[in-house]
Amino acid sequence: MQKIKQLMIEGKKAVESFTIMNELVLPNDTNTFGNLMGGRLMYWMDIAAGIAAGKHCNTPSMTVSVDNISFKNPIKIGNVVHIEAYVCRAFNTSMEIYLKVWGEDLLHQYKYESNEAFFTFVALDPNGKPRLVPPVIPETESEIKLFDGSLRRRQLRLILSGKMKPDDASELKAFFTK
Amino acid sequence: MQKIKQLMIEGKKAVESFTIMNELVLPNDTNTFGNLMGGRLMYWMDIAAGIAAGKHCNTPSMTVSVDNISFKNPIKIGNVVHIEAYVCRAFNTSMEIYLKVWGEDLLHQYKYESNEAFFTFVALDPNGKPRLVPPVIPETESEIKLFDGSLRRRQLRLILSGKMKPDDASELKAFFTK
Amino acid sequence: MQKIKQLMIEGKKAVESFTIMNELVLPNDTNTFGNLMGGRLMYWMDIAAGIAAGKHCNTPSMTVSVDNISFKNPIKIGNVVHIEAYVCRAFNTSMEIYLKVWGEDLLHQYKYESNEAFFTFVALDPNGKPRLVPPVIPETESEIKLFDGSLRRRQLRLILSGKMKPDDASELKAFFTK
Amino acid sequence: MQKIKQLMIEGKKAVESFTIMNELVLPNDTNTFGNLMGGRLMYWMDIAAGIAAGKHCNTPSMTVSVDNISFKNPIKIGNVVHIEAYVCRAFNTSMEIYLKVWGEDLLHQYKYESNEAFFTFVALDPNGKPRLVPPVIPETESEIKLFDGSLRRRQLRLILSGKMKPDDASELKAFFTK
Amino acid sequence: MQKIKQLMIEGKKAVESFTIMNELVLPNDTNTFGNLMGGRLMYWMDIAAGIAAGKHCNTPSMTVSVDNISFKNPIKIGNVVHIEAYVCRAFNTSMEIYLKVWGEDLLHQYKYESNEAFFTFVALDPNGKPRLVPPVIPETESEIKLFDGSLRRRQLRLILSGKMKPDDASELKAFFTK
Amino acid sequence: MQKIKQLMIEGKKAVESFTIMNELVLPNDTNTFGNLMGGRLMYWMDIAAGIAAGKHCNTPSMTVSVDNISFKNPIKIGNVVHIEAYVCRAFNTSMEIYLKVWGEDLLHQYKYESNEAFFTFVALDPNGKPRLVPPVIPETESEIKLFDGSLRRRQLRLILSGKMKPDDASELKAFFTK
Repeated sequence: MQKIKQLMIEGKKAVESFTIMNELVLPNDTNTFGNLMGGRLMYWMDIAAGIAAGKHCNTPSMTVSVDNISFKNPIKIGNVVHIEAYVCRAFNTSMEIYLKVWGEDLLHQYKYESNEAFFTFVALDPNGKPRLVPPVIPETESEIKLFDGSLRRRQLRLILSGKMKPDDASELKAFFTK
Repeated sequence: MQKIKQLMIEGKKAVESFTIMNELVLPNDTNTFGNLMGGRLMYWMDIAAGIAAGKHCNTPSMTVSVDNISFKNPIKIGNVVHIEAYVCRAFNTSMEIYLKVWGEDLLHQYKYESNEAFFTFVALDPNGKPRLVPPVIPETESEIKLFDGSLRRRQLRLILSGKMKPDDASELKAFFTK
Repeated sequence: MQKIKQLMIEGKKAVESFTIMNELVLPNDTNTFGNLMGGRLMYWMDIAAGIAAGKHCNTPSMTVSVDNISFKNPIKIGNVVHIEAYVCRAFNTSMEIYLKVWGEDLLHQYKYESNEAFFTFVALDPNGKPRLVPPVIPETESEIKLFDGSLRRRQLRLILSGKMKPDDASELKAFFTK
Repeated sequence: MQKIKQLMIEGKKAVESFTIMNELVLPNDTNTFGNLMGGRLMYWMDIAAGIAAGKHCNTPSMTVSVDNISFKNPIKIGNVVHIEAYVCRAFNTSMEIYLKVWGEDLLHQYKYESNEAFFTFVALDPNGKPRLVPPVIPETESEIKLFDGSLRRRQLRLILSGKMKPDDASELKAFFTK
Repeated sequence: MQKIKQLMIEGKKAVESFTIMNELVLPNDTNTFGNLMGGRLMYWMDIAAGIAAGKHCNTPSMTVSVDNISFKNPIKIGNVVHIEAYVCRAFNTSMEIYLKVWGEDLLHQYKYESNEAFFTFVALDPNGKPRLVPPVIPETESEIKLFDGSLRRRQLRLILSGKMKPDDASELKAFFTK
Repeated sequence: MQKIKQLMIEGKKAVESFTIMNELVLPNDTNTFGNLMGGRLMYWMDIAAGIAAGKHCNTPSMTVSVDNISFKNPIKIGNVVHIEAYVCRAFNTSMEIYLKVWGEDLLHQYKYESNEAFFTFVALDPNGKPRLVPPVIPETESEIKLFDGSLRRRQLRLILSGKMKPDDASELKAFFTK
């Protein structure tokens, strides 16, 4: 039944939702050490993810979940935040968006990783109810890898939000017990 | 050796870092449906978590990770965002902060869950290097439950950020294979 | 007549509108000495007062006056602003909200008074016209004291805005001539 | 002694600190009825008062008190906020700034009063300690009237902040008992 | 035909749209050298120009072009931005607004030029279509000078946006070949 | 002499400073018609230009001029602003940055031109004085075309800011009299 619905909407390439965002870290974005605050960064990431989601589904959409984010390096005041985002897989009415974030110190020509993240958005019809989105067609090796790992991340998401029992997460169990 | 260090700092009750934050959802915080954007909410949650962390460790601190967040109900424009946060466990130089977020429609006297989340902050010395924080002393039933689940969440965090192998996550493995 | 109207609406305890707000002082909130600007603080106080008013009357409401505020200590950048607010008395369609504001330096574990203030809000019906609000039921000693002093503050407010003649302010005259 | 100090600094005309500010009311400045929020207006008033204070004393300065403000008419979204401010009297290290605020609906060519207010600022030396400011020289009838009423407002301020006993407020007592 | 239309609307004096704006340069408005960012200044200039346009045409209006701006002196953090604006000429449905911007260092009593600029706004009817605006009546010498130079600036604008051929710009040609 | 200086710094390809920025138009960015305000757009363009300048010169830099901008289509609320920028030519210590701006309505899959602009930034040494920047190496046809037109734009800039006499602008004269 689910497959039938999906067939009714033509797939869309992952690259079609690819979104780039660059922001400058200003004083109010930073803590007392002059480092970008995590909350400010997540605000920008959410905007970037929302634009990518909009490019994919061409309807309004809304954040429904954010996966574990680990911030590797602090981003300093005056540095540039570079965000890349695209929809890596769709599940009926929801889209999983992959984000990669770097900091860049233009003065020292030094670019460093901040984090990788997965945001999930749901597409909305004019009444604010979930609506079907096109399936994602991955093409490159990295797109395919993210597409394939998506089921496992989704199971983890459902377990962590109490919507699935650990025992039913076959993909995830295999990951922990292999 | 690590245990010895911990002993040198007196523990602090979980309730001592308890922080309440109320915010009003204004037009610029919302999407086209008049719902609070996820990124704006995470910005406020990060501030609340940072204040709770500061109350616990009394030094500057910085977000190092955010666990999976699942947004249950959209928060509407004009509604109040109610955030509660406290440090539920400490690990040497890092603190796990538990947050619970509600929306409140004052006109309809209707209060609804938004999400529960765990942010991890690291305490910093005057040179910006990690420094020891007091251990947390949980007292109530819910504080003790969060304290006890902390190790498992930490293992998941380390695995997801590539710092631990699934095989070494004994706490987590038990959870998935029980 | 006024009493009759009041009787038609059930009273509400002062504590039911009790609101706590915590904010972090960021660079853009401060002057050249790194002290929180008075205007930024009043912006937050107005939001806190508005939430307390909304909790009491469960209708939209609007600031109509702000009583004399005296700022005792500057609040420094990086410190926390802690605001507590509740409706201390109602007059037909208007509510007097009491606010108490502290600054808190988490690094030095030092909490200091900023100010106490009284904001007055009016409740609005769907057409934006004033509408009746529930009377306030004070319970604790401090709630009762604020409730009792409310008439005197109201007379001062009316005189200062030119709506009452000093001679008619019996409560206030007693205060100055006792 | 106080008079001697004052003589050491040359007086400055009230008009020299005269400051005009115009702002446009944007969506985020308004409540659910599209009216400018009181807190946002006070934020702008504080900036205008601070600029007027700076023009008078040519040193950094800081808000120390705000007198009773009564908002007469709501200012609508898309309207212009027009603020005029000047220092109407100085007391050693502090300045009383008079503000007058109008709303203006440019589409309907309709200008309406919002409020009149008095902010008090203290001048600061490079160490953040209060420092002497020039006395104010009022010239026009309205400047002289504000200058003359300043002592009475100051006594009220001192009483309301608990720094003066009602009995000692000779100016104010005369006002209430005449 | 065009002249006939113009005659139907009564002219308005240039001074009637005169607008003054003062803003304080806060940390987030500045770059790493503590100088006001050009984009932030243009944001304020656009608001000031929009208020002047609204005062002239009393209808909604919208920025359609900005002429060459040359920033003469950086404006420092803590300094005041002083903007003056008025409509210097109207062309059927569009208005040319002249702006003059100074920085002011209140501590050193030093006022310095930032730039002069011309913004063009178009007046809109309730459907968002262009609508006629009153002609401008210049009175002072400087108003007349700006009024007279307006045709030449308009030709340059049309050429630079590709709407006029250089050969047809008689006013402008005379300027370059005289 | 100038040529010698230029030789001392290795050239940099135009593409190396290429910068993409995507922003979402939120309520506070718009006028009463729900169209993005020109000033807000120029704020974002200035940030994008500043990032491109920083990528080219790897030193702090500052806006010194903005060329004539003509806004072709209004950008609606909820739409995406897409900005592309790169340094198209350098003159000793200054850089001319070319910007192209589109609006994008994701719901209607409709992308439309907003404007093309040229911002000029100057590179700064640690004392805030102008410092040499690398020459630009254009490669593609469009990069070469912009590079070649740069002298003419610069002459216009100098004339409009009063730093060059129309008679000395040989490039520009040829343009108007050909």
